[in-house]
Amino acid sequence: MSPPHTVSIRVRYAETDQMGVVYYANYFVWFEIGRVELMRSLGFDYREIEEQAQCFLPVVEANCRYKAPARYDDLLTLETRVLNQRTSMIRFGYRLLRETPQAEPVLLAEGETVHVVVDRAMQKTALPERFAAALRGMTGHVHE
Amino acid sequence: MSPPHTVSIRVRYAETDQMGVVYYANYFVWFEIGRVELMRSLGFDYREIEEQAQCFLPVVEANCRYKAPARYDDLLTLETRVLNQRTSMIRFGYRLLRETPQAEPVLLAEGETVHVVVDRAMQKTALPERFAAALRGMTGHVHE
Amino acid sequence: MSPPHTVSIRVRYAETDQMGVVYYANYFVWFEIGRVELMRSLGFDYREIEEQAQCFLPVVEANCRYKAPARYDDLLTLETRVLNQRTSMIRFGYRLLRETPQAEPVLLAEGETVHVVVDRAMQKTALPERFAAALRGMTGHVHE
Amino acid sequence: MSPPHTVSIRVRYAETDQMGVVYYANYFVWFEIGRVELMRSLGFDYREIEEQAQCFLPVVEANCRYKAPARYDDLLTLETRVLNQRTSMIRFGYRLLRETPQAEPVLLAEGETVHVVVDRAMQKTALPERFAAALRGMTGHVHE
Repeated sequence: MSPPHTVSIRVRYAETDQMGVVYYANYFVWFEIGRVELMRSLGFDYREIEEQAQCFLPVVEANCRYKAPARYDDLLTLETRVLNQRTSMIRFGYRLLRETPQAEPVLLAEGETVHVVVDRAMQKTALPERFAAALRGMTGHVHE
Repeated sequence: MSPPHTVSIRVRYAETDQMGVVYYANYFVWFEIGRVELMRSLGFDYREIEEQAQCFLPVVEANCRYKAPARYDDLLTLETRVLNQRTSMIRFGYRLLRETPQAEPVLLAEGETVHVVVDRAMQKTALPERFAAALRGMTGHVHE
Repeated sequence: MSPPHTVSIRVRYAETDQMGVVYYANYFVWFEIGRVELMRSLGFDYREIEEQAQCFLPVVEANCRYKAPARYDDLLTLETRVLNQRTSMIRFGYRLLRETPQAEPVLLAEGETVHVVVDRAMQKTALPERFAAALRGMTGHVHE
Repeated sequence: MSPPHTVSIRVRYAETDQMGVVYYANYFVWFEIGRVELMRSLGFDYREIEEQAQCFLPVVEANCRYKAPARYDDLLTLETRVLNQRTSMIRFGYRLLRETPQAEPVLLAEGETVHVVVDRAMQKTALPERFAAALRGMTGHVHE
């Protein structure tokens, strides 16, 4: 498998809840940052896909397993991978880690999102080839 | 001044932060509920204004004074008033209260939002007369 | 299986994104409303569990399948069930529906969350018996 | 006045709404990032103030004037200043700008937040001197 794309995320105060840890729904907001930055690293702005190709990637499935809490002001590393890609479907995988000064990073959460490719009328369409090709370069020989 | 429109709001866990109280930005989300429900009470869906009249009400100014914290699971009362209305501007005022069993309600926050009326291209336009008339009925003789 | 607990949810403007539909992470905020209101219907405030029993229910797993988009101002019905319950684990199931005037409700999403029961120090503990018993009354003979 | 502290903010998809621009309440989440990063640049973690000094800075007043919309994926610059500081009060000022390739940055919004210094019991207290001194170094001769 190709190495994942990584991006740093600083936990915002707004993202915590009264349990003193990050509210669980916010991990999915971070996953969005992971896949957008992965696309940018491939030379694509997701904005561009929407604006120029009139192509949208709504989520049809999302899941997350929470291993250890993220806390306010933590500097986290989010790894994002393309797990699977078909004509009008993409599946991303995510691993969220907290770096620690003298030890191994701690795995905080793992998750996946599945996206379908649709046009402005929300009808299934194919991902523009230019973009599909770039993603294929990332997935390598991953088959499920 | 006419009596305000009132709506009940139950505080969500997601809306708290690690200080154990509601995060300050969320009051503005509640203010949106107040003005939307005020419009609905006048026979208008804000959705309808956007979809049919292609008329949008972006916020150009927002402010809030926080008097006492709102806490998880509190059942709050939000009062909303039209403070001022011109051809392409509306100003709403809000008071957020917590009901208490045997005493006076406690004022948690007060705020205002100012909105301009724009078309889909974000150009200033006039509020559809049908809607403007209904709002005028609410403002009474308030002039600033 | 016992009938689910149901609660109504009005979609907020803040919950939409520029695709014109509700942002996917917000469904998990609604799921929280579902389980909290289910507990309230059993005579328990989740607030009370935290404050009096010093017992917390962090999420260890969350997932959602999105079938059809929720839109601004939709009035939705959220069904919540206790799918499974052990000494220090609870699994909730959710179905989100949009009522339609003359037809069957439309299923928008389905999901589950798994919670562990922990004390203030985030150590696994048992759910207070009073609360566990009430939940058992709801789950009936569901075993997985 | 001292030069402001600046921090870059990339607009998240989650922060947009169906008007195609950033939802107004999210500017206040960004303001929080501005003041936290300003403190960090002075050698203080806000986390440290809460954890070690048991000192909290709840917002008692917040306001924002919106000049031009922020859009998805925009890379923004947030300038933060300490406008005013007393024993148990701090006022921050914010200017949000969008950089443009060949022209002057565009001012998107301006705002302020006022904070009181409280202890864990939400009673007014004095800001720890070490922190107060560092902030004073930033405010220069600003008096109101």
